[in-house]
Amino acid sequence: MATAPADRLLVRYRIEAEPARIEARASALALEQSVEMPAHAIADAAIRAVVPGRVEEIAPLPAEPGRPGAFEVDISLAATTIGDDPGQLLNMLFGNCSLQTDVRLVDARLPDSLLAALPGPAFGIAGLRAACGAGERPLSCTALKPQGMAPEALADLAGRFARAGIDVIKDDHGIAEQAVAPFEARVPAVQRAIDAANRATGGRTIYAPNLAGGPGRLTAQLRVARDAGVGALLACPMILGAPVFAELLRAEAGVPLIAHPALAGTAIAPALLLGRLFRAFGADATIFPNHGGRFGYSLATCKAIAAAAREPLGNLHPAMPVPAGGMRVDRVDEMLALFGPDTMLLIGGNLLEAGDGLEARAAAFATRVREAGGDAGRIEQ
Amino acid sequence: MATAPADRLLVRYRIEAEPARIEARASALALEQSVEMPAHAIADAAIRAVVPGRVEEIAPLPAEPGRPGAFEVDISLAATTIGDDPGQLLNMLFGNCSLQTDVRLVDARLPDSLLAALPGPAFGIAGLRAACGAGERPLSCTALKPQGMAPEALADLAGRFARAGIDVIKDDHGIAEQAVAPFEARVPAVQRAIDAANRATGGRTIYAPNLAGGPGRLTAQLRVARDAGVGALLACPMILGAPVFAELLRAEAGVPLIAHPALAGTAIAPALLLGRLFRAFGADATIFPNHGGRFGYSLATCKAIAAAAREPLGNLHPAMPVPAGGMRVDRVDEMLALFGPDTMLLIGGNLLEAGDGLEARAAAFATRVREAGGDAGRIEQ
Repeated sequence: MATAPADRLLVRYRIEAEPARIEARASALALEQSVEMPAHAIADAAIRAVVPGRVEEIAPLPAEPGRPGAFEVDISLAATTIGDDPGQLLNMLFGNCSLQTDVRLVDARLPDSLLAALPGPAFGIAGLRAACGAGERPLSCTALKPQGMAPEALADLAGRFARAGIDVIKDDHGIAEQAVAPFEARVPAVQRAIDAANRATGGRTIYAPNLAGGPGRLTAQLRVARDAGVGALLACPMILGAPVFAELLRAEAGVPLIAHPALAGTAIAPALLLGRLFRAFGADATIFPNHGGRFGYSLATCKAIAAAAREPLGNLHPAMPVPAGGMRVDRVDEMLALFGPDTMLLIGGNLLEAGDGLEARAAAFATRVREAGGDAGRIEQ
Repeated sequence: MATAPADRLLVRYRIEAEPARIEARASALALEQSVEMPAHAIADAAIRAVVPGRVEEIAPLPAEPGRPGAFEVDISLAATTIGDDPGQLLNMLFGNCSLQTDVRLVDARLPDSLLAALPGPAFGIAGLRAACGAGERPLSCTALKPQGMAPEALADLAGRFARAGIDVIKDDHGIAEQAVAPFEARVPAVQRAIDAANRATGGRTIYAPNLAGGPGRLTAQLRVARDAGVGALLACPMILGAPVFAELLRAEAGVPLIAHPALAGTAIAPALLLGRLFRAFGADATIFPNHGGRFGYSLATCKAIAAAAREPLGNLHPAMPVPAGGMRVDRVDEMLALFGPDTMLLIGGNLLEAGDGLEARAAAFATRVREAGGDAGRIEQ
């Protein structure tokens, strides 16, 4: 990547364009993502010197047959245009140009001043582990599903998972404020079932219900969750809004926040959005669709997400990568070898498919994760 | 589109797949967007019968050279899985599959029960017109820019636009909570300048400042805006979060809400997202990039957005389409002929480019829009 002064973000885009037009296209993008007007029409010279995006570097990418050229374009943006708002950060990085089909957002280097203004994880990997009493090992996670289950059924299922020793039981992110199982009914019921299982087994399973709705409803849900004594919370930053996630949930959760990627799209590089940005917004763990499951992320993409969640980033705690999306118990060893111990493995449907053998399969999953050792992939910092 | 019972949404996706695999792909998508697990693993027969998405129809699209086949796939989803939450609606329509590159969301027919639960515009086209004292005519709109201007400079610019008779002066959506011009400093200053201009001209120009941030900050901004007496408000639903837009802003604004499309992406059909859904979430007007400007929307797409914003939709007020994105004063007649009088035209940079001639060009724009007559494109309902 090019370099930029300490008071500017450096943002990398991938642009498809004919080689003869890439310079004009890059310049237009730099204006689109900042002043949204022709530079010559900016009357104030001091603004003209600092505020418009600047094209710092243009590098051609290998040609693909039948496509126009593709280029990596580094553009710098003034940090003062963002302040401390995660929404305005997304707006400057990709607000208007998200509507254009020739641009993807590949990477962004956030200056220290901006990193210091963003909340980052309140608990991080160590805090999430501590909530489960898990020492230095990887964590196991599963999901309550399908949507449509009544509170008693959800509680029964949660109790079975907890007796099997799963570390974190989260709601399916499709379980929202539905009439069949309102938050205030299902969350205490599920937590009671998990508490009972923990008392019976001596385990430390925690529950992460899914927050959904506008700020009034979220505030009510946070109160119910706190009163019930949940150990974590799940939320979808791109559905609730990054500013809500960073301002309301990060401040009020009081327990680790697990981010779900729903509505994240494909136009922003997953390592940037699900790894670096969700972490900067306050996610203690970030769920992503692992390669070889129901989604198309490559092995390299998944490794990059995990790296972005854990690597040094200002003074922010590392966040726990959570590979998911159609994973199976028979892939646990492979996933742990790939991602290492600073990882939470999420397996949902594959446990439910076991039918009457659910508790046995869940126990096999939890045990295998708990007993995993080794230092592969441990955070290097 | 296929048909579906009154308690189900009918959702149309465009899927790229080899013809031999489209049935399996459509079935997988129906599960992905609902229960997120294999149907056979759902223990409860009553849930299995209703809650999973159902493939209702698969229709091949014309083949494109060098691509696999493409299909329009209609899937129905149970309305009970959504309740009344705009975020959960987006989640069900496109949450997980937004991460997949072979799927686009083309259309969605919302059942009456859902439409009745969503807020819709509080003011609609008639209310926005009334706020400007504009009778039955189209409206003119411009933007304060660039970001980086101090409150006094923004106020001076707003005063010039107001003296020129522009109906609505909005903040550029890149103007957020920045140190150079905090909301509580710039909004009263701009409103005072517009008030002074209105007193001088007898005009009814209104100001729409841009709301940005989490719910705490938004609540403070709403108070400042109310105290200043602004006539409208601007917000980006996909950045702030649809639930925040529908719950907090729609309820608390007290003036018409103008939605900006930043971060809306390209994978959801603009007519559905910017037209129907933003309107259902409470937008009184919806800005979109008009064809022939800086963005790639086709003429057909722009007409479809305007139609979706205005057409009958439950009991919801129509919303005002706002074509924008690099428009010029010399295109006013063409745009009015295309979109008709139930339209607000937004021209920003082209006015600023006039330099010392800004007021004259702005006045020419405002006058041409004010004097436009004719019934082309009037709401048919």
